[in-house]
Amino acid sequence: MSQEQIIPAAGGVGVRLRQGERLRVIDPQGGQSGDVFAVSADGAERLSNGRTFDYQGKIYLSTGDVLWSDRSRPMLTIVADDVGRHDFLYASCTIEMYRLQYGVKGNHPNCADNLGNALRGLGVDPGPPPTAFNVFMCADVGPDGALSFRPPPSRPGAAITFRAEMDLAVALSSCPASTCNGGQPPRPLAFEVLPPA
Amino acid sequence: MSQEQIIPAAGGVGVRLRQGERLRVIDPQGGQSGDVFAVSADGAERLSNGRTFDYQGKIYLSTGDVLWSDRSRPMLTIVADDVGRHDFLYASCTIEMYRLQYGVKGNHPNCADNLGNALRGLGVDPGPPPTAFNVFMCADVGPDGALSFRPPPSRPGAAITFRAEMDLAVALSSCPASTCNGGQPPRPLAFEVLPPA
Repeated sequence: MSQEQIIPAAGGVGVRLRQGERLRVIDPQGGQSGDVFAVSADGAERLSNGRTFDYQGKIYLSTGDVLWSDRSRPMLTIVADDVGRHDFLYASCTIEMYRLQYGVKGNHPNCADNLGNALRGLGVDPGPPPTAFNVFMCADVGPDGALSFRPPPSRPGAAITFRAEMDLAVALSSCPASTCNGGQPPRPLAFEVLPPA
Repeated sequence: MSQEQIIPAAGGVGVRLRQGERLRVIDPQGGQSGDVFAVSADGAERLSNGRTFDYQGKIYLSTGDVLWSDRSRPMLTIVADDVGRHDFLYASCTIEMYRLQYGVKGNHPNCADNLGNALRGLGVDPGPPPTAFNVFMCADVGPDGALSFRPPPSRPGAAITFRAEMDLAVALSSCPASTCNGGQPPRPLAFEVLPPA
């Protein structure tokens, strides 16, 4: 039986998926973006935005699209999506980003640490700071390549569901950055693991 | 004294840069794309497209723009650019990509191996397959996020010049893929290292 679990506001969690299982990521309050990063169960392959852009022929991904590994194997297929817009351009926020862009002096929660700690908790080496699939995050590319943010369009209870195409270690983070959350403080996300359809 | 060196067609080379030195990458015949990947001299930081998109606020980069590391330090500044369009979306081509997209059965030259071997030659661990800065490569993003290729707009002798913002190990590759070279077979590129301006 599946059961929803919480991703704490500005926090992260890790979960192992078997091939065929589905991961549903939910935005309970709406308007909150999150990071989804996947590594093959043996740690040898990582989610790759550049490989995914290549094979899908587009940068905005939704139902029916596949997220690929850096070794050209399908990792996750988006099988349902209430929202329709997510980001795969921005690297996960890091402590250095908060120092540079927000003037933070001490520590600050960040997705790269959340994802790294979650993977370590699953016994997987997270490797270099990742670019995750940023669920519910909305960044537009202008005709000249300029980037601009809109608040996440996810309404309360909106969800995106992925099917695991291989055995995976997956890390999830509720993004602490106000810029990609419509200026709001971070709120929790939730997830559930569903059996093969 | 600087001197132009050849990057063989479909091949790669490595070069170390000291902070302040400039790297000029030249397309002698025109219409050929290449990969530029940088790692900090100690191997701890890697070039990051996602970090660069964030800090530059755009996906198309040219003169005056900075390429950032995954630890949020400037690596390379574009100080001169005859062409004006380059790509930072596509992951470097890999052997798996040629098998999947071109139906290659045996081996095939590829940028990921070229870059990895070049970095190993400099004594640096290349880490996971990279997304390099794809000089002269022209991929357009449509309003709906769809990607399309145009031939590299570089005319014979066109060049792009980077200034090293830290001590770096840099790998260069002449891309073997016909899709990003206007359907033509790979041709050589060239480079020279210039002293601080």
